[in-house]
Amino acid sequence: MVAHITIGSVSESDLLARIIPMFGESPHAGSGVVVPPGDDAAVLATSGSVVVTTDSMVRGRDWRDDWSSGHDVGTKVVAQNVSDVAAMGAVPTGLLVALAADPDTDLDWVLDLTRGIADAAEDAGCPVVGGDLSSAPPGVVIVSVTAFGDLQGRAPVLRSGARPGDIVAVAGSLGWSGAGLALYEAGARPTTLSLPPDQHSDRDKNMSVLQWYHRSPRPPWESGPVAADAGATSMIDLSDGLVRDGGRIATASGVELALDEMALRGYLYAFEEALTPDEGWRQVLSGGEEHSLLATFPPGSVPDDLAAPWTVIGEVVEAGPAGPRLTVGGAVPSVTGWDHFAG
Amino acid sequence: MVAHITIGSVSESDLLARIIPMFGESPHAGSGVVVPPGDDAAVLATSGSVVVTTDSMVRGRDWRDDWSSGHDVGTKVVAQNVSDVAAMGAVPTGLLVALAADPDTDLDWVLDLTRGIADAAEDAGCPVVGGDLSSAPPGVVIVSVTAFGDLQGRAPVLRSGARPGDIVAVAGSLGWSGAGLALYEAGARPTTLSLPPDQHSDRDKNMSVLQWYHRSPRPPWESGPVAADAGATSMIDLSDGLVRDGGRIATASGVELALDEMALRGYLYAFEEALTPDEGWRQVLSGGEEHSLLATFPPGSVPDDLAAPWTVIGEVVEAGPAGPRLTVGGAVPSVTGWDHFAG
Repeated sequence: MVAHITIGSVSESDLLARIIPMFGESPHAGSGVVVPPGDDAAVLATSGSVVVTTDSMVRGRDWRDDWSSGHDVGTKVVAQNVSDVAAMGAVPTGLLVALAADPDTDLDWVLDLTRGIADAAEDAGCPVVGGDLSSAPPGVVIVSVTAFGDLQGRAPVLRSGARPGDIVAVAGSLGWSGAGLALYEAGARPTTLSLPPDQHSDRDKNMSVLQWYHRSPRPPWESGPVAADAGATSMIDLSDGLVRDGGRIATASGVELALDEMALRGYLYAFEEALTPDEGWRQVLSGGEEHSLLATFPPGSVPDDLAAPWTVIGEVVEAGPAGPRLTVGGAVPSVTGWDHFAG
Repeated sequence: MVAHITIGSVSESDLLARIIPMFGESPHAGSGVVVPPGDDAAVLATSGSVVVTTDSMVRGRDWRDDWSSGHDVGTKVVAQNVSDVAAMGAVPTGLLVALAADPDTDLDWVLDLTRGIADAAEDAGCPVVGGDLSSAPPGVVIVSVTAFGDLQGRAPVLRSGARPGDIVAVAGSLGWSGAGLALYEAGARPTTLSLPPDQHSDRDKNMSVLQWYHRSPRPPWESGPVAADAGATSMIDLSDGLVRDGGRIATASGVELALDEMALRGYLYAFEEALTPDEGWRQVLSGGEEHSLLATFPPGSVPDDLAAPWTVIGEVVEAGPAGPRLTVGGAVPSVTGWDHFAG
């Protein structure tokens, strides 16, 4: 029986003394930071404007402890926020973290969460500049992150700028997070991960990649500013699925996003042997929490950047009598994304 | 039996359609807002830097539904954040709100919370520019606010700048929130509030003001930029009590804050007939969640602004052999503030 140290058994100042140095280890910390953590508020340098967004994860709703580690949760909550910054065409410049946790939460879990946040922040090139700790009821852990971004002189890329004739393209994967969740929900557990990689079957490899992506996604946030520089007319972060989020661009822009079925079926390769073709197709169209970027570009201007690749998946056409909508192969797909409350 | 509509019984988009217009009614909305709510992220105009801070309130820990309304909670969580912005010498420019709530939460409560946030944001002159909704476990409601501020060319006022010879001053009340909490905990309920004010006893009036301030504080955030303009050398928001937060200035600055006991006893007037003198004194020194501002000024530079008054309560002296500390009447007070986890 291992004795667990809880966060309630150490003082708030001791807990902060453990957490804050983990954020300070990022080599990027301090780059644009005028006032670092430790005062009433932090101060970040800006270039005339600041991009701001917030997103939370709730234990038992947005993650399960038997599937995800603290590090996974920290990675994912940062990724969600940074991809929203990227979807405006901005680079991330800083993060705030608010943790509300049951005092009986394991200290080791909180430190693992902190490490995950710090690692993802370092990967994104932005420091954690502050936060807040609150005591929560038994069993409750909620992590809220606010991300800041700098447009570096670019105009923000909105959802409303798609025009007929534009090309629709996506940066990053489609359906991996939803597929990973479906595998977990079906009880799948890759048991061969301790074997050398050359002894993994294709099925095991696909399954473990999908489950990994669900736990700790790494969306292509570098592709956001690249798209803005290339002249993207609209952009969105795919948090609720391609059909639902693409539909938001269509509605905001007053156009039809006509997606190409063959191009999208190319994304099924990731699910071979792990999901049925029907289930894989459902995930490509409607899997949530992917955080890849969907954008529209004037013809001939889709970025050709190997480090931040964009894949053409359709075109923008005039809205027809049915009004703004998203179609796949000419038809409105029957799948939809998810709703946080009404499920 | 009134049928309650819960937030889980309406769709997320319907809920947002109720909430977002309440924020848009602020006459200040849009002033510095480059991209308003509704896209992946909001964009705020800045003048070279941005002040950022976050603070959360947890139902059952930071408020009780039988004492506080949703409007009270909204007012308080905004006040906490805006006073942190003010304590840097900045004016508030925008807010993000993250709500994690049990789907069984009453829709009316959430709308009342929203109205409280919107009213306080309007009072502070800053728009709500975005947010996040999450589903939480049964009974759980957590409201997290992130506030942004603009220094308008001022240097940020840190905790570390107090120098021997400086004057210590406070803007706002001392101990009201802690006193109000103590009255609630003792079971007090002002029952005469429905009577005309001239029929209230002094005791009833004092009690109801203290309880009101505990539920929905209105700290003097306008005094922060005034202090910075006057040359304040250090400043802090009083969230954990005068002794504890003043001690933070002493430690960060490497000085002693020598507070004047007679000046501080002047603050006891607010508690007459409502608290015993000993309890009132304890609240002046260590009552939490007041969010008044404590600052140090070079001699002769304490602001003389009737709209944002500062009251002298002591002076800064060289740290003695005991090191940086806060004293009252020459002695270290025995009371301390509170700890969010260890109590």
